[in-house]
Amino acid sequence: MKPVVVAGAVAAGMSAASIIKRSLPDREVIVYGREENISYGACGMPYFIGGEIESYEKLAVLKPSWAREKRNIDLHIRHEVTKIDRDAGKVEVKDLESGNTFWQEYEKLVIATGARAIMPPIPGADLEGVLPLKQLEDSVRLDEYLNEKKPRKAVIIGGGYIGVESAEAFRNRGMDVTIVEALPRILNIVDEEMSEHAAEELENNEVAILSGTKVVGIEGSGSVERVKLETGETLEADVVLMSVGVRPNTEIAEEAGIELGDKKAVMVDQYLKTNDPDIYAAGDCAVAYHNVLGRPVHVPLALGANRQGRMAGENIVAELNGNPLNTFPGILGSAMIKIFDGEVAKTGIGETEIEQYGLKEVDSVSIKAHTLAGYYPGNSPMWVKIFYHAHSKKLMGGQIYGAGRSVLRINILATAISAGMRLEDLYNLDLGYAPPFSPVWDPLLVAARQGMK
Amino acid sequence: MKPVVVAGAVAAGMSAASIIKRSLPDREVIVYGREENISYGACGMPYFIGGEIESYEKLAVLKPSWAREKRNIDLHIRHEVTKIDRDAGKVEVKDLESGNTFWQEYEKLVIATGARAIMPPIPGADLEGVLPLKQLEDSVRLDEYLNEKKPRKAVIIGGGYIGVESAEAFRNRGMDVTIVEALPRILNIVDEEMSEHAAEELENNEVAILSGTKVVGIEGSGSVERVKLETGETLEADVVLMSVGVRPNTEIAEEAGIELGDKKAVMVDQYLKTNDPDIYAAGDCAVAYHNVLGRPVHVPLALGANRQGRMAGENIVAELNGNPLNTFPGILGSAMIKIFDGEVAKTGIGETEIEQYGLKEVDSVSIKAHTLAGYYPGNSPMWVKIFYHAHSKKLMGGQIYGAGRSVLRINILATAISAGMRLEDLYNLDLGYAPPFSPVWDPLLVAARQGMK
Repeated sequence: MKPVVVAGAVAAGMSAASIIKRSLPDREVIVYGREENISYGACGMPYFIGGEIESYEKLAVLKPSWAREKRNIDLHIRHEVTKIDRDAGKVEVKDLESGNTFWQEYEKLVIATGARAIMPPIPGADLEGVLPLKQLEDSVRLDEYLNEKKPRKAVIIGGGYIGVESAEAFRNRGMDVTIVEALPRILNIVDEEMSEHAAEELENNEVAILSGTKVVGIEGSGSVERVKLETGETLEADVVLMSVGVRPNTEIAEEAGIELGDKKAVMVDQYLKTNDPDIYAAGDCAVAYHNVLGRPVHVPLALGANRQGRMAGENIVAELNGNPLNTFPGILGSAMIKIFDGEVAKTGIGETEIEQYGLKEVDSVSIKAHTLAGYYPGNSPMWVKIFYHAHSKKLMGGQIYGAGRSVLRINILATAISAGMRLEDLYNLDLGYAPPFSPVWDPLLVAARQGMK
Repeated sequence: MKPVVVAGAVAAGMSAASIIKRSLPDREVIVYGREENISYGACGMPYFIGGEIESYEKLAVLKPSWAREKRNIDLHIRHEVTKIDRDAGKVEVKDLESGNTFWQEYEKLVIATGARAIMPPIPGADLEGVLPLKQLEDSVRLDEYLNEKKPRKAVIIGGGYIGVESAEAFRNRGMDVTIVEALPRILNIVDEEMSEHAAEELENNEVAILSGTKVVGIEGSGSVERVKLETGETLEADVVLMSVGVRPNTEIAEEAGIELGDKKAVMVDQYLKTNDPDIYAAGDCAVAYHNVLGRPVHVPLALGANRQGRMAGENIVAELNGNPLNTFPGILGSAMIKIFDGEVAKTGIGETEIEQYGLKEVDSVSIKAHTLAGYYPGNSPMWVKIFYHAHSKKLMGGQIYGAGRSVLRINILATAISAGMRLEDLYNLDLGYAPPFSPVWDPLLVAARQGMK
């Protein structure tokens, strides 16, 4: 009996392997992971850099020895799948320590190779002190660099999630911080008004933001000293974070003739199968069906990656047992980001998606409300925007900016969208209330009513 | 044209009156309120007593002068509707200052008389220093008493919402506090495990709890000095809070032959109409249709009261305009309570309702999870219990105990229940995640998956 092989040992890969091994303890499950670490909380890295979390080891959910001994997974770290021979049903694997390669047969293969930080071809990007923050080892290297060189001036190239979270981390370590964003604004995943609130919070915390401008060069002798912008401006910098985005690791899949989709992520069907019936894909290297857009897109987020990994494992178990497969429920791209004392969240579609996909007949309503009862200490402003279909009034998306965990409310909207609720159904919800947690009329209800008018 | 008359000037009454006057500015709307204050945030009173809110005036959402001048409502404070003559279409009103009574005709009448604190007939309950906390004036009187007499030992009779919130308030003012609860446990609205967490948090904050015992007498010369329990035990007390519950103010409705329902609250139909086609009822004096129980019940909570008031107003407008009436969407009894650093929330049904209504074929799942990503500072335990129909797996209720506003999650459940979701639908939700706000798998998703096994 040939083994199940999993290429990738972080969220999706280890989820898949664990599920298969738990359900089919006699089946050999081999996992190859490029890094030293497996199954870690990548979203926690900015908080390790910022000093809120003492050790990067706290981010490792599962240690390799546990995976091997307690879960009986045949785990090989520092090994990379470099080729897929679909006809022969085998993969080429490279031992990254020795450099040796070997072939391994599979009955079923899971591609869970994740994504990597995009390192744009800027002259000088190879200088010491120009670092990404994508893998756990990146965070170790960055932290060591900060400890050793004690840089004073950081430039962050790219104002997405990681850029913004890292800006806070760098400020917590006492550095001067500038974010350079090529697009007209940071946090392009949310609407302009929301990214303006976020920018204001960053600037209130002395993070400089230069948007609508590109970095054209990084200079220094040996290590980074300056960043040059297309405007001609020069920024002093003794550390540079590259956070312009991620790219799915799908070269081996593409070479093997596996179909790719949005942003060159592996295309999967509702069962998370690729165009090869023996090959599944899951996590940041794969697309996921977006329930509002109605198409498969590449939205690399932690819950989706874990869920896809789990379900790829469940479906391989079902297939090997001759049972019907499970259908992936799809995603809404729900996300939350902390920005000092501010918080921003989104779910479903917003202006970015409306523009990108040319969506028609989407209306929106925006309100300013408050997080708590008006008289309760700590009450603060909160902005809610809700997107809905112009005719049916079906909910399609929403965004929140606020404080004090008020963004947890985005999940009410995610639930309502998943249920096919209309504005009126949202307004009719009997939500819980107490002055320390909410106004009597929750901001979501206020927004829904405003939209109904 | 006869006026619309509203009996009651707090949440439901003023909501109704404001809606009517806004839509029909030429229609005379007369409101009679017993108290000096109108339209106040009653749920904020414990925080005024505890000192978090400086002045009781902050709780007044609307001042009488504004209601008169800006909303053009013919508001009469310190006036009580004492009789309804349905045949003649008029109410008897008593001026509580002068003692005079008069009759006022109505075209439509809204009964929004609220509820009052139950003052059980305990010997000595009329002593000075034995006080309720239901009306805004109660909070003023209690605050004055605490300022003047500087009591050191408080006994709270009744461990419901108000009792528990007031225990925190009294501790904040440095008093020794004992809660005496006749039932076997405090916070009987939630399950035993949740009320145990709440009791532990209270006890960690030096609130003594004596449950399963009754107060049989209150003693003192002039003002309260002691509370006697049925166990024979005596508690020293220089202030006693009566918080054993509330009773709807429906005597005038009952006398007039208006049908009453659960707990003698006014019975209303889906349009919030009583059995008299010209009389509506709304707020804490009325029943509300419970969407899981499938029956009208008396659950006096702020959002429901406001919503009923608003809709009673809207339906009177619709009726006077000859338009179709709106249907009240029903309630789930969603509630949240802060208990020092703890929080408890519920929605839908729990063990209390299962027992009270003899519900069959309800299953539940309980988990212990955590509020945040495991490595994130401030992460703390959180308990989730979900109730669902044994066969269909449709969600029927849920309870949460946690910290750090984790109870905001109860509204995800409330939304899912309203949408008719099953356990699997809940598990399939794409919820937002970031380490400072949530684990990757939100505790609700973990609970849903556990229940699916």
